Amino acid sequence: MKSAPIYFGHIAPILDQYLKENSFSSIFFLVDENTHVHCLPLLLADLDNLSTYEILEIDAGEENKTIDTVNNLWLSLAELGADRNTLVINVGGGVLTDMGGFMASTFKRGVQFINIPTTLLAQVDASVGGKNGIDLEGMKNMIGTFTQPEMVLIDPKFLKTLEQRQIKSGLAEMLKHGLIQDRDHWDNLVQLLAHNADDLAPFIMDSIEIKKQVVESDPLEKGLRKILNFGHTIGHAIESESLETEFPLLHGEAIVIGMIIEAFLAENKGILSTEDREEICEGFASLYALSTIDMNLFPSLMEWMRHDKKNEKNSINFSLVNKIGKCSYNVICDEAEIKTAFEKYNNWIG
Amino acid sequence: MKSAPIYFGHIAPILDQYLKENSFSSIFFLVDENTHVHCLPLLLADLDNLSTYEILEIDAGEENKTIDTVNNLWLSLAELGADRNTLVINVGGGVLTDMGGFMASTFKRGVQFINIPTTLLAQVDASVGGKNGIDLEGMKNMIGTFTQPEMVLIDPKFLKTLEQRQIKSGLAEMLKHGLIQDRDHWDNLVQLLAHNADDLAPFIMDSIEIKKQVVESDPLEKGLRKILNFGHTIGHAIESESLETEFPLLHGEAIVIGMIIEAFLAENKGILSTEDREEICEGFASLYALSTIDMNLFPSLMEWMRHDKKNEKNSINFSLVNKIGKCSYNVICDEAEIKTAFEKYNNWIG
Repeated sequence: MKSAPIYFGHIAPILDQYLKENSFSSIFFLVDENTHVHCLPLLLADLDNLSTYEILEIDAGEENKTIDTVNNLWLSLAELGADRNTLVINVGGGVLTDMGGFMASTFKRGVQFINIPTTLLAQVDASVGGKNGIDLEGMKNMIGTFTQPEMVLIDPKFLKTLEQRQIKSGLAEMLKHGLIQDRDHWDNLVQLLAHNADDLAPFIMDSIEIKKQVVESDPLEKGLRKILNFGHTIGHAIESESLETEFPLLHGEAIVIGMIIEAFLAENKGILSTEDREEICEGFASLYALSTIDMNLFPSLMEWMRHDKKNEKNSINFSLVNKIGKCSYNVICDEAEIKTAFEKYNNWIG
Repeated sequence: MKSAPIYFGHIAPILDQYLKENSFSSIFFLVDENTHVHCLPLLLADLDNLSTYEILEIDAGEENKTIDTVNNLWLSLAELGADRNTLVINVGGGVLTDMGGFMASTFKRGVQFINIPTTLLAQVDASVGGKNGIDLEGMKNMIGTFTQPEMVLIDPKFLKTLEQRQIKSGLAEMLKHGLIQDRDHWDNLVQLLAHNADDLAPFIMDSIEIKKQVVESDPLEKGLRKILNFGHTIGHAIESESLETEFPLLHGEAIVIGMIIEAFLAENKGILSTEDREEICEGFASLYALSTIDMNLFPSLMEWMRHDKKNEKNSINFSLVNKIGKCSYNVICDEAEIKTAFEKYNNWIG
């Protein structure tokens, strides 16, 4: 599977040219209430070759990443006369581009779509790899397909519309790219003086390149691609659990905790040096406010982990950093080892 | 896209060998209340290499081919611990294999599946081409993917469990294969003395070969594959309309009417000779009990046609036989032409 082309910078002229060269029967923009107001107008202002279009709006937030939302979108597409020569343009964060990609890849067995990720997280993560999907009763990305968009358009100006908390969430995935594949990338990001949209923009393409290289070597996640899951086995469980509370964590916030606990796990397994584990912990601690995990939640977190897509029956399968810039995969860990890693994390915080 | 391998005859040893050679973490049979009783036991009796398995049962019938049914199946798979190394075996008619294929191709972004079509219709039609899907508020196969099963296993002994009405429904697609691509196949089928399971079995592989050849030349239905839609633009509309009544037609029954009306349409367009149109009408009349279409339903039937997947905005796109054994596609017809064809059909019947 070839990756979709990714364009970075001032994207409107590229989209405009694409619309000029292709004659679509109809064009649908999928937005949420935020991107409808903050991003879509910036885009529309620069598109000379767009005549008529429809706008589909969904509610922002992971809790809406469900089959019900997608079913409503399918119905809207049908009612508004979308056909196989329709183009869908997804403008939003990862939740929106994941859902929009799933909607497009299954409507009439697949219509073309373009992704315009507008959050840092979506730009450095969901933008590459052709994965799309929805959650199933809280189980993250349980349903979906592997389908490439026609292209991915990344414009750093959209990042200025984000709160700092959103920027930090995306930074977590960038830091992961460094930890699993490129020590320099990790060092550059940790050592930055400020971590705002302007300062991070120059490193976005580096992160995308790392992810792209990994994905292209293993598009269907049979082997190496699994290293992108570092921090995600535990991180997804924490994220799913938190989504059921009144104070849900953002994806990147959960993944930061996941990466630290999995670093303790790797250290205990004897595959990561204490020195590197400490450097990882200190790097994250300098950037994120961390708190302990209530161990009463541990059984429930184990349940989420057992439902993780990466697992085969009766074993929990981890991707673990074995030194900063390198990562192993298919590391099987049992419940006792996982529990010890949580306790070490709590002790370190405490 | 390569077609899946198709095996015909006594299939249990083939499946048994496949299970022996592959080590799946779990195996799920998807059945309906009919195939659970009449087909699954015949299969299980001959499988030596099957130890544990789960059975998922759904209600038979096109009215259950919905996202709700698939959502319940996804939840069952998750609850029963299906993982990426799970095998799904779909045992049933086209509704079931279409839904089972969609369920499998989207669960955890795709698990492997095998189709065992048990109706004549599914054996000669749904078995080839990698299409799967569900209906959306009555709009046929509006949602789905193109995904090939690992293999398709066709055993004519399952046909003995079918009512004659079901056999006739499958025969309709076989006759279509003759009309669009192979005059001998049409002649052979029309001239058969009896049209029961035993007499039709020798012609099943001929039908499959015709469909396979067409599909492989155009897997994503950009051109030639569209000829398989002969009879289906009008036939699907009639089928959708009838599903909202107390006496729904079977797929093949609706398609027979669709093929006859589309033959009149082709004759009126000047692309099919009156002689061939008459031969088509007489062939079907010798095999099926036909009745007129209430023209009060015509506006509603036009609505269904406008929603057909094959159409681009504001035009109805037909595949029309231009002589017995040959078919054109992308023939645009307007509402007046379609109405005339319906009226000619009614006059011919009346």
